[in-house]
Amino acid sequence: MFAIAITLLVLEIRLPEHTAGGAELTVWTRLAALWPSYLAFLLSFFVILIMWINHHELMRLVRAVDYPFLFANGLLLLTVSFVPFPTAVLAGQLATPESATAVAFYCGTFVINSLAWGLLWLTIVRRGLLRSDVHPTTLLRIRNAYAAGPLVYSLATVVAFYRPFLGLAINASLWLLWIRLCYHSSRGALREQERRPA
Amino acid sequence: MFAIAITLLVLEIRLPEHTAGGAELTVWTRLAALWPSYLAFLLSFFVILIMWINHHELMRLVRAVDYPFLFANGLLLLTVSFVPFPTAVLAGQLATPESATAVAFYCGTFVINSLAWGLLWLTIVRRGLLRSDVHPTTLLRIRNAYAAGPLVYSLATVVAFYRPFLGLAINASLWLLWIRLCYHSSRGALREQERRPA
Amino acid sequence: MFAIAITLLVLEIRLPEHTAGGAELTVWTRLAALWPSYLAFLLSFFVILIMWINHHELMRLVRAVDYPFLFANGLLLLTVSFVPFPTAVLAGQLATPESATAVAFYCGTFVINSLAWGLLWLTIVRRGLLRSDVHPTTLLRIRNAYAAGPLVYSLATVVAFYRPFLGLAINASLWLLWIRLCYHSSRGALREQERRPA
Amino acid sequence: MFAIAITLLVLEIRLPEHTAGGAELTVWTRLAALWPSYLAFLLSFFVILIMWINHHELMRLVRAVDYPFLFANGLLLLTVSFVPFPTAVLAGQLATPESATAVAFYCGTFVINSLAWGLLWLTIVRRGLLRSDVHPTTLLRIRNAYAAGPLVYSLATVVAFYRPFLGLAINASLWLLWIRLCYHSSRGALREQERRPA
Repeated sequence: MFAIAITLLVLEIRLPEHTAGGAELTVWTRLAALWPSYLAFLLSFFVILIMWINHHELMRLVRAVDYPFLFANGLLLLTVSFVPFPTAVLAGQLATPESATAVAFYCGTFVINSLAWGLLWLTIVRRGLLRSDVHPTTLLRIRNAYAAGPLVYSLATVVAFYRPFLGLAINASLWLLWIRLCYHSSRGALREQERRPA
Repeated sequence: MFAIAITLLVLEIRLPEHTAGGAELTVWTRLAALWPSYLAFLLSFFVILIMWINHHELMRLVRAVDYPFLFANGLLLLTVSFVPFPTAVLAGQLATPESATAVAFYCGTFVINSLAWGLLWLTIVRRGLLRSDVHPTTLLRIRNAYAAGPLVYSLATVVAFYRPFLGLAINASLWLLWIRLCYHSSRGALREQERRPA
Repeated sequence: MFAIAITLLVLEIRLPEHTAGGAELTVWTRLAALWPSYLAFLLSFFVILIMWINHHELMRLVRAVDYPFLFANGLLLLTVSFVPFPTAVLAGQLATPESATAVAFYCGTFVINSLAWGLLWLTIVRRGLLRSDVHPTTLLRIRNAYAAGPLVYSLATVVAFYRPFLGLAINASLWLLWIRLCYHSSRGALREQERRPA
Repeated sequence: MFAIAITLLVLEIRLPEHTAGGAELTVWTRLAALWPSYLAFLLSFFVILIMWINHHELMRLVRAVDYPFLFANGLLLLTVSFVPFPTAVLAGQLATPESATAVAFYCGTFVINSLAWGLLWLTIVRRGLLRSDVHPTTLLRIRNAYAAGPLVYSLATVVAFYRPFLGLAINASLWLLWIRLCYHSSRGALREQERRPA
């Protein structure tokens, strides 16, 4: 599902009409005028990619699955599958006087998304679905990261009303948090592939 | 396929033009005016999510697969992959005087969908594709649920003509039926994950 | 890939504008006017479903994979992933005076598709990629079916110019050929599921 | 993800309106006028197909996975999932006086794409993620191919400004490079299937 959402992002990039206000536009001009679409595509691509990797790693810490887990997970997937819409809004408004609204809406959807991550984490912990061999340090690190998410995204949303690009920058800074959030204590390879001889 | 249909839903949400009847609209106004799209997205996302989980659980009760099964299953997938269209109709008409028609159409497609579930179940039972260790209580519970589906969806369709939002509420109430339909007698974890050490 | 192509079909069904030639149209009228879209959706859904099952069964007869196989397979996937376009053309033109052209184009794409099936089959046989335990009767049955495909689809294409709906009917009649094309001599279950206890 | 990107390509092919400059157009004329779309679809389909196969083969040489690998891989997937957009630009402009710009843009995206392949390869080699039993000749062959990619794509981009179709031909000529790039020393079957008896 992450794979599908990430690939659908490109469908929102479309070359504008070749006239604007009566003037003929070259293809270069029209391609260049799409910079908000490229920026929004890049931002959302990497956010979904990082969430994809994080989700995959999180699932590796889970030892069992029950219905509450499935619905908390479904809620998270809902917020992920929604991302192409705020991305399209962002792309459409970033170069207009209303960019603040669009960035705030974009950041706001990640507030919801980070709350869904928190709910999934709570469900996993409360219902005893964690593997028993997960290191306490790992647990602490994940809990802190999942608690920081909603706060930083809320901050980005508020800032976006006054300084849209600063809001976007704060939003993107959370990538670092997630990238650095190692689900494993080891620093080496995440896992060995299991493969037959090539 | 459930994953794809569920992710395509967001493509039907699009920001309307920034003028309506000559008046300029802010981005907030346009985002707020999309509430029928958000509602339709939520409704269809959760319906497909619940069907996805149910389908997965149902497949776990099946011990073998034959051609009639594959085609009954294909018919069910057809009705699932069709869902984005009535969802788009619903989103487009919910705030108009013709919402009754759109809600009835939306509920009507789930009448067909629930009949396809029934056909798949009949095929599985009649052709002896069930695992032998499925508990009789489980069978009875599934049969009752699959029989109730078409009735409640038909009721929702009829009600929709007079009270569109009541029709939608009845439609959504079936979520509870499906969520509560446990395919397992145990109350514990659905299954243990089979994973290598993290 | 079959799963994706089959799910994308629904994106081509869109409710037409609520005015036509100055007259207001009700939602029912507009939903009813979409019958060519529903018909085209059904036709293409089942064609892709049947090809999906056939492809899956064919792959089970293959014991090894090499580059020519991968490219013959890729060519087949190309013709499958193209199907949503002739489907959209068919849906758009079936109720117009130019339906003959659209049906001929639709059937014509399946001529190409059936030639791609033939090429894949030839590649598998010529390069010795078949399992050794495939029964000669099965081989003969597949060869005949794959030879009949291009002929019947060509017939459908020619007929479509004079009698569009007859052309469509011939096209759809091939479903029976493919459904009946059992890749196994046994009449029983295709295969037992391999599953852990529920 | 390759599967999704390759299947989304067809969504960019759309039948143009049935009038142009006041003249009525037949469906045949409109279908024929789409030749740039068909050409762009074919080009991009085969490029993604070949990248898909290459990626699959490359992954078979990898013995372990770490975070830098996941992000280099993500960057590559980004450039692949972007392909439908330059394809749509190419399709829209190939029959216009501005085809040079569109072809240059199309080829330019593959310069980026081939650099992402190079980065992924570097990451795999530098971080010791390669299987130990990969033959030195294979390594040399891959390194040369991955080094040639950006050069030939850059050449295609420059040529495109003067001779668009020659640029496209150079671009497509790289298919041969990639098709010929065997990741295995053996000339026989890539691998035996592991299957239960049919």
